[in-house]
Amino acid sequence: MIYLDNAATTKPSLAAFERAKVYVTEKYYNPSGMYEEGFLLQGELKKARSALLSKIADESAFELVFTSCGTESDNQAIFSFARRGNAVTTMGEHSAVAAAFHELKTRGVAEPRFAPLEKDGRVNVDKLLSLVDDKTSFVSVMHVNNEIGAINDVNRIAKLVKQKNARVIFHVDGVQAYGKIPYKLSKDIDLYSLSAHKIGGLKGVGALIKRKSLLLPAYLIGGGQESGRRSGTENVFGIMQFVYAAEEKFATLKEDYARLTAYREKLWESLDQAVYTRLSSDEGTPYILSVSAKGLRGEILLHMANDKGLIVGTGSACSSNAKNRYSKVILACGHDEKTADGVLRLSFSPETTEEDIEKAGEILNEIGRDLSKRMR
Amino acid sequence: MIYLDNAATTKPSLAAFERAKVYVTEKYYNPSGMYEEGFLLQGELKKARSALLSKIADESAFELVFTSCGTESDNQAIFSFARRGNAVTTMGEHSAVAAAFHELKTRGVAEPRFAPLEKDGRVNVDKLLSLVDDKTSFVSVMHVNNEIGAINDVNRIAKLVKQKNARVIFHVDGVQAYGKIPYKLSKDIDLYSLSAHKIGGLKGVGALIKRKSLLLPAYLIGGGQESGRRSGTENVFGIMQFVYAAEEKFATLKEDYARLTAYREKLWESLDQAVYTRLSSDEGTPYILSVSAKGLRGEILLHMANDKGLIVGTGSACSSNAKNRYSKVILACGHDEKTADGVLRLSFSPETTEEDIEKAGEILNEIGRDLSKRMR
Repeated sequence: MIYLDNAATTKPSLAAFERAKVYVTEKYYNPSGMYEEGFLLQGELKKARSALLSKIADESAFELVFTSCGTESDNQAIFSFARRGNAVTTMGEHSAVAAAFHELKTRGVAEPRFAPLEKDGRVNVDKLLSLVDDKTSFVSVMHVNNEIGAINDVNRIAKLVKQKNARVIFHVDGVQAYGKIPYKLSKDIDLYSLSAHKIGGLKGVGALIKRKSLLLPAYLIGGGQESGRRSGTENVFGIMQFVYAAEEKFATLKEDYARLTAYREKLWESLDQAVYTRLSSDEGTPYILSVSAKGLRGEILLHMANDKGLIVGTGSACSSNAKNRYSKVILACGHDEKTADGVLRLSFSPETTEEDIEKAGEILNEIGRDLSKRMR
Repeated sequence: MIYLDNAATTKPSLAAFERAKVYVTEKYYNPSGMYEEGFLLQGELKKARSALLSKIADESAFELVFTSCGTESDNQAIFSFARRGNAVTTMGEHSAVAAAFHELKTRGVAEPRFAPLEKDGRVNVDKLLSLVDDKTSFVSVMHVNNEIGAINDVNRIAKLVKQKNARVIFHVDGVQAYGKIPYKLSKDIDLYSLSAHKIGGLKGVGALIKRKSLLLPAYLIGGGQESGRRSGTENVFGIMQFVYAAEEKFATLKEDYARLTAYREKLWESLDQAVYTRLSSDEGTPYILSVSAKGLRGEILLHMANDKGLIVGTGSACSSNAKNRYSKVILACGHDEKTADGVLRLSFSPETTEEDIEKAGEILNEIGRDLSKRMR
C-alpha cells in the first residue's frame, strides 16, 4: 500500500512511540501529584514545552500550552480573542477555523469576514488588509493550506495587519507547517496552532503557542492544569511521543524539504497532463500536490486508486462529512466546479520513497485514462 | 513503590496498550479518509462506542461521543445545557464541574447553585431539591466523589429532580464510577461523563454519554467528527486502548468491588486510630479511603510516605494547583480546618494487592506516630 494522504494524518513514528512508552509503563503518574514522581513529570512537561517551542519561536517571548488537537487549539484561540466588532480570516482555512468563524456570527460575538484567495491558494493580502479596520479584534491566517499546499507569508501579513490596527490579535493555524516548513515566529504573531499527528505524532495531541504577554483564557475549565490555560490531566505519553516525533522531523527538515520538492515535481512530471491539471503552485509546500482530473470525479478516482493499492485524498479529510460536494477552498481559488469535482490531493511524508512516487504516477495515469475512456 | 493514588490516575493496562498498538503501526489512517481503510476505522469506532456504552446503558436510548478527557465531557455538558435562570450542582463536585459552574456566573449565563453535603460526602438530597425550581435548566450531580468516595444514588436523585421540573437536563460526572461501581443509567439521566485514565486507560481520552433524543451542540467545532458533536481527528489508538482496558475492568468488576471493599476495611482497621480519623463511609466506593491525621499536615505525611515508598494523595490531584489550602469538599462535609489539613486519600485499583495494603498500613502508622511525636 502506497500512502499519499499524509496531510490527513501521518503514520506515527514507532521509534518515538517506543521511546515514550516509559510514560505508560513506569512514569504513569498524574503530573499534579504532590509526590516526587508527580513533580518530576511536571519538570518533564516543562522541558517538552520548551523542546517543541524552541524549534520555531523565541522562548523569551512565547510559551506553549498543550491541547488535545489542532481543532481545540484553533477553537481556543478564536473563541478567546474574537470579540465585538469583526474578525477576519481567509477563504482557505481548515474547517476548525472556518466553522468557528461562522459560529462567531451565530453566537452574535463578532462579524466574521473572509478574505478571498489567489489562484494558487494564498490569501489575497490586499483584500485581507481591506477587511481589517479599527473594529477588528482578531485575524487568523493559516500558514500552509491543507488542501492545495499554498504557503502564506504569515510574518509579513501579520506585520501589515498590525500596521493597520495594532490592537489586533493575530493567529496562525500552523498545523500543516510545523516540522515541515522552515519558519520562525515573528514578533507580530500572537498565537500559533500545532497538531502532533500531522508529523508522526499521535492523534489526540495538539498545542497552542502564545505570546507570553497575552492573557489566554482557559477553554477547558477545571483543575487548572497548563497554568490555568487548559484543564484536564496532561496526556504525558502523547505529549512525549509528540516531542520525540518532532525532534525527528526537525532534524531532517531541510533535507526532507528538498527531497520532497523533487518528488513532488517528479510526480507531477510523470502525470498524463491530458488527464491531470496541476492546482498546487511550485512555491507551495513540498508536502502537498493537488491536481484535478477535470471532467472526472475525484471520489471515483480515489476508490480506483485504493483498489490498486494507492491511498490519496480528495480534499480535506477533516471536512469529508460536510454536505457540500465541492471544496469551498478550491472554488475560492477561482477554479470551476468541474475542476473542483476532479481534485485529488497527493500528500507526502519524509517516509515517502521515490519508488512510491513512481508507482503512484503509474497508477494515477492508468486509472485517469481508464476513467476518461469510460466517460466518453 | 506502593501506589495508592489511583483516583488521580491509574497505571495504564499494558495488555490493552499492546492490543491497541496495531492502530499505531498499521491502522493509523484518518477515520475521515474516504478510502476503505478510513471507512473500516469508522466501523471500528462505532463498535468502540457500543462496547463502552453497553456496559452501563441501554443502547437504544443512549449514545456515546468521544472527547479528550473527563474535563472536556463535563465542560461540554455544562456549557451546552446550563441556560438562563439557574443551574444546580453539589458542593462535592470535581473542579471540572465546580469551576465550570462558577464560570456560568462570570459569563452571566445562569445562576449557579451549590447543594450542601452530608457528613459522608453525599449530597443532601432534600436541600438539592429545594434549589431546583421552574427556572432550573440543568442539574449536575457526581456519581462517586473523587476525594472522599461517597456514592450518590444518581438515578434516584435524577428521578426526584425531574418530578420537580421535568425540563431539567440531568448530568452525572461518572469519572470515578465507570468500570468500578455496578450501575446502569436510568431513563432520567441525560448525560454521563467518563474518563479513560481512571480505569487503566490512557490520559487524553474521555467520553460523554448522552440520551439519543438530546441535541448536543459541539464544544469543539470544525470538521464535524463524532456526528458533528466533537470535531478533531479521532484519537483511535487511545479510544481502542480505552475499550480494551474497560473490558478488563468490567470483566472482574464485582470481584474487584468485593475484594477492594475488604482491603479498604483491612487498611482502616490496621491504622492507629489515635492518629487517624476515618472520613469515608463504609457505604462509599471501595476504591477510596479518605482519612485525616487531625492536627498534622497531610502534605507533610504525603512526603514522608513518599520517602518510604508509598504514594498517596491528599485530596484531588486535579485541584492541587488551587490556591486554597483546605479542600472545599472536606469542609463541605462539615469537617473543621484541622481535619481538612490532615487529609490523606488512599485510593486503590484492581492491581492493588493485600501486601500493598499491609505495608501501606505500617508506613502510615509509622509516619503518623513519628510526626505526632515531633509536633508535641
